[in-house]
Amino acid sequence: MRMALGVSYGGQGYQGWQSQPSGNTIQDRLEAALGQFAAQPIATVCAGRTDAGVHGLMQVVHFDTALQREAFSWVRGTNTFLPPDIAVQWAQAVPDAFHSRASALARRYAYVVLESPVRPSVEAGRVGWVFRSLDGEAMRAAAAHLLGEHDFSSFRASGCQARSPVKTLGRVEIARRGRYWRFEFEANAFLHHMIRNIMGCLLVIGQGQQPPGWMRQVLLARSRDAAAPTFAPDGLYFLGPVYEPLWQLPSQAAAYDWLP
Amino acid sequence: MRMALGVSYGGQGYQGWQSQPSGNTIQDRLEAALGQFAAQPIATVCAGRTDAGVHGLMQVVHFDTALQREAFSWVRGTNTFLPPDIAVQWAQAVPDAFHSRASALARRYAYVVLESPVRPSVEAGRVGWVFRSLDGEAMRAAAAHLLGEHDFSSFRASGCQARSPVKTLGRVEIARRGRYWRFEFEANAFLHHMIRNIMGCLLVIGQGQQPPGWMRQVLLARSRDAAAPTFAPDGLYFLGPVYEPLWQLPSQAAAYDWLP
Repeated sequence: MRMALGVSYGGQGYQGWQSQPSGNTIQDRLEAALGQFAAQPIATVCAGRTDAGVHGLMQVVHFDTALQREAFSWVRGTNTFLPPDIAVQWAQAVPDAFHSRASALARRYAYVVLESPVRPSVEAGRVGWVFRSLDGEAMRAAAAHLLGEHDFSSFRASGCQARSPVKTLGRVEIARRGRYWRFEFEANAFLHHMIRNIMGCLLVIGQGQQPPGWMRQVLLARSRDAAAPTFAPDGLYFLGPVYEPLWQLPSQAAAYDWLP
Repeated sequence: MRMALGVSYGGQGYQGWQSQPSGNTIQDRLEAALGQFAAQPIATVCAGRTDAGVHGLMQVVHFDTALQREAFSWVRGTNTFLPPDIAVQWAQAVPDAFHSRASALARRYAYVVLESPVRPSVEAGRVGWVFRSLDGEAMRAAAAHLLGEHDFSSFRASGCQARSPVKTLGRVEIARRGRYWRFEFEANAFLHHMIRNIMGCLLVIGQGQQPPGWMRQVLLARSRDAAAPTFAPDGLYFLGPVYEPLWQLPSQAAAYDWLP
């Protein structure tokens, strides 16, 4: 049978999602814990791989197993074997046609930025940081240039393995709460480092070093050289994938309330 | 001259505020960094010592020094020598009559609790955890019994060094945001473990294992044996001291917006 899991994690101590020889990735830890609980090897497929240092609020994975267990046993049992900063949030049996990556209609990410003359401390590793004040209207005007279907080559890391640089960015929301800015992104899929590269450009514009229209120039250049440097992974959160309601998976929204 | 500093820190990796032979406390790290910046030893006095694992959003310290520097140089210079999870937020010259501990009229703490069937993950070490649902009205009714001047011996750790167990609790606020509960406490001073012991009792009541009136029984017993076990330090945040406006110190409130 095929099982789907929702997984949350703090990415600070790990080399990203994807399995590595070091064993120090979220996937490695999750598969080791699942294997201990199931007493047999379990291989998972995730909705969206995250980079080193990037956090996950509701990653979704699926795997196939012959083992029959109550759904919540998978949660409780696996969590017993996971480190404190990774936890399975829910488990659910799904049809074989469900695929955590291929069935995802869209992915959502948030980036949290501290605006302060002083660097992060209690929130170190959990937020990006700017010491100049940000102009929300300028950043929103800049982000509007990115909405819709575009060739996002200017925001693509050199090692990106995506087949096409053309993606559809459906939503960018920028909101402030106290000293924290929250940027939320939704697209059908993202290129490698796409959000961190967009963030670099948005913050250049937000700090008044470029006008909002510069974002359009960067986009049209279709060259990584046109964009600002890649911003830090610290404040990036994979909120989770979006699926058709027909799969009847638990709502992802519950996980978001940790963010400012 | 006398200087006051506002300091923020994540307490997870440290053995509390107060200097220890291990050197692994917030005070040790702060004094080492101040000493490196000033090129001379600097001894600090804080507004409220925090336990191992407890976080500080705006601790206040003072120290005396012959060194003359711009206020923000103390911030920037000291932060250069501090670990990523500790940062000076502001520095200000104060009259010699100011004393970070003795001048504090009150202290504020917050405790953040995750209510979820699943343990914390991305927020591990930053929140307490209950897996049963909490009754806010019952907890508020229980907390009301504690307001005002009382002998808080029932909530006092055995090693507590306070001269008197009589303290005045001015305010307890309990609010929910999504899956997180935030408890805010203000008192002239707190006994050792007082908030963690009160939290233990509030959560017993919030989960329906005791009625709200039980809190009054525990208080009147004036015995540690009457109360629930001490709750975990993970979700406890020292928000900071409250001073007379005459000292003209920066507002502490700016630091609170990190909490859910």
